[in-house]
Amino acid sequence: MRATRVLEALPANTPFIGPERLMREGGLRELVRLGANESAFGPSPRAVAAMSGELERLSWYGDPDSYELRETLAARNGCTIDQILVACGIDDLMGLVVRAFVEIGGVAIAARGTYPTFAYHVAGYGGRLETAPYTDAGEPDLEALSALAHQLHASVAYLANPDNPSGTFISGERIAAFYESLPVGTLLLLDEAYADFAEQELLLEPRFEDRLIRARTFSKAYGLAGARIGYTLTTAHNVERFERIRLQYGVNRNAQIGALAALEDEAHLAWVVRETAAARDAYAELARGVGMTVLPSRANFICIDIGDARRATRVMNALLERGVWIRKPGAPPLDRCIRVTAGTPPMREAFARALRDVLREIA
Amino acid sequence: MRATRVLEALPANTPFIGPERLMREGGLRELVRLGANESAFGPSPRAVAAMSGELERLSWYGDPDSYELRETLAARNGCTIDQILVACGIDDLMGLVVRAFVEIGGVAIAARGTYPTFAYHVAGYGGRLETAPYTDAGEPDLEALSALAHQLHASVAYLANPDNPSGTFISGERIAAFYESLPVGTLLLLDEAYADFAEQELLLEPRFEDRLIRARTFSKAYGLAGARIGYTLTTAHNVERFERIRLQYGVNRNAQIGALAALEDEAHLAWVVRETAAARDAYAELARGVGMTVLPSRANFICIDIGDARRATRVMNALLERGVWIRKPGAPPLDRCIRVTAGTPPMREAFARALRDVLREIA
Repeated sequence: MRATRVLEALPANTPFIGPERLMREGGLRELVRLGANESAFGPSPRAVAAMSGELERLSWYGDPDSYELRETLAARNGCTIDQILVACGIDDLMGLVVRAFVEIGGVAIAARGTYPTFAYHVAGYGGRLETAPYTDAGEPDLEALSALAHQLHASVAYLANPDNPSGTFISGERIAAFYESLPVGTLLLLDEAYADFAEQELLLEPRFEDRLIRARTFSKAYGLAGARIGYTLTTAHNVERFERIRLQYGVNRNAQIGALAALEDEAHLAWVVRETAAARDAYAELARGVGMTVLPSRANFICIDIGDARRATRVMNALLERGVWIRKPGAPPLDRCIRVTAGTPPMREAFARALRDVLREIA
Repeated sequence: MRATRVLEALPANTPFIGPERLMREGGLRELVRLGANESAFGPSPRAVAAMSGELERLSWYGDPDSYELRETLAARNGCTIDQILVACGIDDLMGLVVRAFVEIGGVAIAARGTYPTFAYHVAGYGGRLETAPYTDAGEPDLEALSALAHQLHASVAYLANPDNPSGTFISGERIAAFYESLPVGTLLLLDEAYADFAEQELLLEPRFEDRLIRARTFSKAYGLAGARIGYTLTTAHNVERFERIRLQYGVNRNAQIGALAALEDEAHLAWVVRETAAARDAYAELARGVGMTVLPSRANFICIDIGDARRATRVMNALLERGVWIRKPGAPPLDRCIRVTAGTPPMREAFARALRDVLREIA
């Protein structure tokens, strides 16, 4: 029984190994989870209460149109409900964008070593990913990416802002210039998973054009990663396209309810954003204390420069042995860094202790 | 900005309209939900308790490997964990099967008018669905389907057993004969969403071959439709294939927790199965009382023969106006029926009242 040509040609490939598997394989019973940029500050208590009250109705499918949630999101974003698509998080939305716009054999582009699930989907749908390395400052190289899009007639350009894994932030003005520099046949998929942590007035301004799809999530600042829910802002035309292929009943009913309640708890969001900034500052201070630097970050994680890639991998592995789970960028020049998620004060303390310990050990 | 050729050629197309939209458009505030074969008996209280206790940890992604759940499912099904794939319900799994095995322009086959999400995925991935009508007895026509598979070199044959929308059940022996009659290049996707309601000893026996994928769900007897979680039983080879393309972090964390707890509550499952049988009997009696017949059903719904398609549509619409939501098969010969989900006694009573009312009105 043969699979499709695309699947038969696809190598075994997982974008990320989950922490549960690391625990099983390492025989670890506890893990300080600082590797997946999950919110250490949890979901809004209002979201928890709303979901709790509806658990018994989980025998009902969720509204396939996510109508109430989209209505609220539309009001927040100054757009119409038909410009919003809800799906199972940005991973799901990225898959839809690739499926909708990248032909088999078509080209997509991204910064080399950025969030790997985009590459995973491009390969999975039979496309070809081409990349441009990050700048030495740790930013996606917008000029190089634009040149690549022109040279290769890319269908989709992927850009995360704030970026993952670097955490660096590019102002809306520069994003707009980059978008305008792309060929008319290139769609910009702007992954704004971490935009809730950035200064809102510095984001790309609202803009609804077929060539632009912005993806947002409840997984990060809203603390609902396990719920799997995110959305795009784009044109009604694009949403109608996705309507023809998306999994119509894919979104968990309680995820819709939790997301709606989370949106309404602005105080919780503001608190999470403040705590996240405090965590970044604490990590920067810790790094200075051990003679290291950090990359500037506007996300809920930060990259600490360990000096070189081998050493950074060694630090990551040694931290895991001590029950502290982080990740690290995979490609130069960022691979000299480790990436740590914003934690609560006790999590930060556990990380600081383990890091000092590890650095002493490998000195 | 052009989409892919497959998407540009795809007509607007939704497999189902959700009840929330019917309520919004009809100005209905309450609806007796008997249209989507959701469990009227709810999830296991143990599942509710387990999920409730973990809501605050919904800031964590679920285990992308669904390891604990797969371990339990493997033990139950006498197979190994690597023969099980978990995804966001059977709809999601069907999409994966089509994506993995149907080339653009390739052919898949199914009974004409069966569960429409399979057709939706085949079209969405650029395949072509060919169908054979149901027999007059309301069963998928296995001989005709097999002949079609040979004639068209179908990649995938879809069969639901118990069938949806008819509710009819085909014994494991006959399923095995059908499977063996298919060409070696045809994979059988056996949708067993409703198998929990059938006599377990009459199901197709365990069988793990690349050409056979059985799909199961927690949406029906386990009452977790809104959680979006289901699984396949197939070979490790097929699972490894899906591993290369599936949404790795797609399954809600609490859905995994709820499914695991639901599996362990065998008493709740047995109660649901008994109540479902009682509901089918009550509907059959109601039908007899108004001079109508039902199709034999082993699922959590039953088809009532209204006589002809126009009349059945009229009954369905008139029921909706009275706040009772059911669905009906779309293709002959089943389109003369309405399909009603097993309800609790009060739901059954509401349906009976509304049906008698409607039949009087249109007499």
